[in-house]
Amino acid sequence: MQSARNKPSAPRRTIPTELLQALRQRFGERFSTARAVLDQHGRDESPFEATPPDGVVFAATTDEVAEAVRLCGQHRVPIIAFGAGSSIEGHVLAVQGGITIDLSQMNKVLMVNSEDLTATVEAGVTRKQLNAAIKDTGLFFPIDPGADACLGGMAATRASGTNAVRYGTMRENVLGLTVVTADGKIIRTARRARKSSAGYDLTRIFVGSEGTLGIITEVTVRLYPQPEAVSAAVCSFPEVGNAVHTVIQTIQVGVPVARAELLDALTVRAVNRHSKTTLKEQPMLFLEFHGTPSAVREQAETVQEIARENGGEDFEWAVHPEDRTRLWNARHKAFHACIQLRPGARAFTTDACVPISRLADCIRETIEDTRTSSLPCPIFGHVGDGNFHCVIVADPNNAAEMQEAERLNQRVMQRALAMDGTCTGEHGVGMHKIPLLKEEFGDDAVDLMRRLKMAWDPLNILNPGKVVVP
Amino acid sequence: MQSARNKPSAPRRTIPTELLQALRQRFGERFSTARAVLDQHGRDESPFEATPPDGVVFAATTDEVAEAVRLCGQHRVPIIAFGAGSSIEGHVLAVQGGITIDLSQMNKVLMVNSEDLTATVEAGVTRKQLNAAIKDTGLFFPIDPGADACLGGMAATRASGTNAVRYGTMRENVLGLTVVTADGKIIRTARRARKSSAGYDLTRIFVGSEGTLGIITEVTVRLYPQPEAVSAAVCSFPEVGNAVHTVIQTIQVGVPVARAELLDALTVRAVNRHSKTTLKEQPMLFLEFHGTPSAVREQAETVQEIARENGGEDFEWAVHPEDRTRLWNARHKAFHACIQLRPGARAFTTDACVPISRLADCIRETIEDTRTSSLPCPIFGHVGDGNFHCVIVADPNNAAEMQEAERLNQRVMQRALAMDGTCTGEHGVGMHKIPLLKEEFGDDAVDLMRRLKMAWDPLNILNPGKVVVP
Repeated sequence: MQSARNKPSAPRRTIPTELLQALRQRFGERFSTARAVLDQHGRDESPFEATPPDGVVFAATTDEVAEAVRLCGQHRVPIIAFGAGSSIEGHVLAVQGGITIDLSQMNKVLMVNSEDLTATVEAGVTRKQLNAAIKDTGLFFPIDPGADACLGGMAATRASGTNAVRYGTMRENVLGLTVVTADGKIIRTARRARKSSAGYDLTRIFVGSEGTLGIITEVTVRLYPQPEAVSAAVCSFPEVGNAVHTVIQTIQVGVPVARAELLDALTVRAVNRHSKTTLKEQPMLFLEFHGTPSAVREQAETVQEIARENGGEDFEWAVHPEDRTRLWNARHKAFHACIQLRPGARAFTTDACVPISRLADCIRETIEDTRTSSLPCPIFGHVGDGNFHCVIVADPNNAAEMQEAERLNQRVMQRALAMDGTCTGEHGVGMHKIPLLKEEFGDDAVDLMRRLKMAWDPLNILNPGKVVVP
Repeated sequence: MQSARNKPSAPRRTIPTELLQALRQRFGERFSTARAVLDQHGRDESPFEATPPDGVVFAATTDEVAEAVRLCGQHRVPIIAFGAGSSIEGHVLAVQGGITIDLSQMNKVLMVNSEDLTATVEAGVTRKQLNAAIKDTGLFFPIDPGADACLGGMAATRASGTNAVRYGTMRENVLGLTVVTADGKIIRTARRARKSSAGYDLTRIFVGSEGTLGIITEVTVRLYPQPEAVSAAVCSFPEVGNAVHTVIQTIQVGVPVARAELLDALTVRAVNRHSKTTLKEQPMLFLEFHGTPSAVREQAETVQEIARENGGEDFEWAVHPEDRTRLWNARHKAFHACIQLRPGARAFTTDACVPISRLADCIRETIEDTRTSSLPCPIFGHVGDGNFHCVIVADPNNAAEMQEAERLNQRVMQRALAMDGTCTGEHGVGMHKIPLLKEEFGDDAVDLMRRLKMAWDPLNILNPGKVVVP
């Protein structure tokens, strides 16, 4: 795949043979420089040019991660953490070369405290794996970014997804982390109390730091009681705005809706085609309610009434677990369904997030802007958070298309900023949003980020070329 | 008031006359070196020896704060932010001398966005003032640390209080801040989107930084719809453990209880004496439920059943607003009621927070430990968060008592740490928990905090002697 957009922040650094030998000696077969392995670790779900590392360590323990970091540090060689490879902003691309530490084999659920509603897992545990492991405790872990991402990566990108409107994002749901610092020290950012005012919030500094301040090796998260009753519904609307207003009003009256997902007509078409569903190809809300049976009934009635006032029709309920699973599977596949609108294409997945009062405007303007483009630009998102994805589908071998996609992408981000929003609600900065941070926060705030990076990673070896340029 | 405990981290710095002249010239009558003003700004609700600053600037705008910081920075003079003076760990004490910036005149509610459920206020706005200002919008700001603290101070100490079990703490409810940095720059930490993955979490770094990384001058917070129905109750239990288990089980079954406050028998006695109430002098829970009328009814029934199984009796309901106000006023006065158990006394307010599965043990051991002491040690707290305060009431003029109080205080913190908890759930570090941070996080993690402090405040002028020693 090609892309004109991949401008690394600095050239690849030279990897000393001595380091490769040391890693081979220490990790044996769990250190690889095989082409296929490098290639596999040089890409994610972003549209950016694959950029493989020079070697991959498959770490088994936090101590091993620390050893690998220390070895790389001695040679000032970049270190990139890799989990499920489901990131969307090129986070795992080795843009300055270096060694990737693959954490997918660190996949043990270490501790489940059902009385405290917490679990501690190794960074490579995926959200589905965690939920399978705790199924019998009556608890669940709600954060659901769609992909079966690993918890380490979800923490590192401050991920959220469909349940965030009710349960929060990784920011709210990570209680503590084990982290390997740039100098190969191992720290715990917090203990297991639900809250603390003890010192600077190390946990929140690492959550969302995209591997640039430390390598997350263990994650302690909050769990929640499985709701006694769950009910899901889809509802069609004449225009996107009606759907958005339904959700805004739902939140304003205090209905604790668990999920409130918007799909525009094009997304519904893509989903129908991909998942063989027969949803009406109109703007649509996917809703879910959690609570006691009577609370769920009451929430559903309130929202149904609000939807009706906003022109919503054809409320279809999915009360049985298998119906709900089918529905949410279809929703989760929306991203891939959209990409497959054009075989061989890649997607620029915009990630605007604005105050909800501006969301309808932001989506409407985005639709108007993309309507004239030759590229398909389906829109879906987490309306309750003011967050939506316009998936700009382009042919990676067509430079004009890639430029057009990039232009539209930039305009979505500028639009979000103009509405007091953020250029990324849940995907992260990666490489290509670095200039946007200056617009979003201003030079002086970005300078604080830069100074933090330099203070904690003075050699700039942790995922260099991402988030900030020191 | 005297105390043996006040060991400043470094001597008072010399204040150049030139600086005092410059501040007088710039701020006129809003700069004061009057003894009474200095004394008033040298103390908070902690038991520590009053330590006044050398001058006080009453700032009216963020720009003025920035100017004052720049002037002090030129002379390497400490700067201490001061709001309502309700902190409990000596945060505002000028232990190395310097200039206090009083933000209480920055008390404007700048913006209420009722559609987005956000408000932006100047740092000196108090929580009650904010709630009065938004009363007619149908929204409220839930964080309630008891004292009518100002929002800037609440953000700076990562405060929480009685509603945190449902609505979270300042960590979860601050959307963004305006901050003056050590070099007198003005930054915004975030825009108004509900979530963001854009760069390092500046907001969360400043929340809980106790004025050591920057001076918070504006706060944007989340608001919530006023619940349609509210119901509160008190319930007595034979032992503290029964009350704690009632709350643990309530949370485990997923009842979204809004408040769940424990008072031990001694606290109830103090409250009765102070607020002229006639509560049964036994361990007691104060509970509150928010939601629709039927949801509140259902929650209350579930909790009542759980309480009964745990030996709870005499459930008394306060459905009318005035009854609830009376109840919560009594609860909010518990701290002062406890201090007044001995006229002229001061309180060491411990702030242990542990995983809730350990809370009953932690409180039981604390009661056993304090039972043999001659000092009254009433206990109350936020059970749903695993957080409780053992208020050790001592005579500040009696060195032996102050030492005994300090010994008990240290033991409470050690007990919390031994149970995977934190030495401070919501009050902060101030001066006297600095050594505890090393035990709680380890040297390497504290070193990261130290490096962050040095990167952002290289001259160590922002509230020196608090949180970390650079």
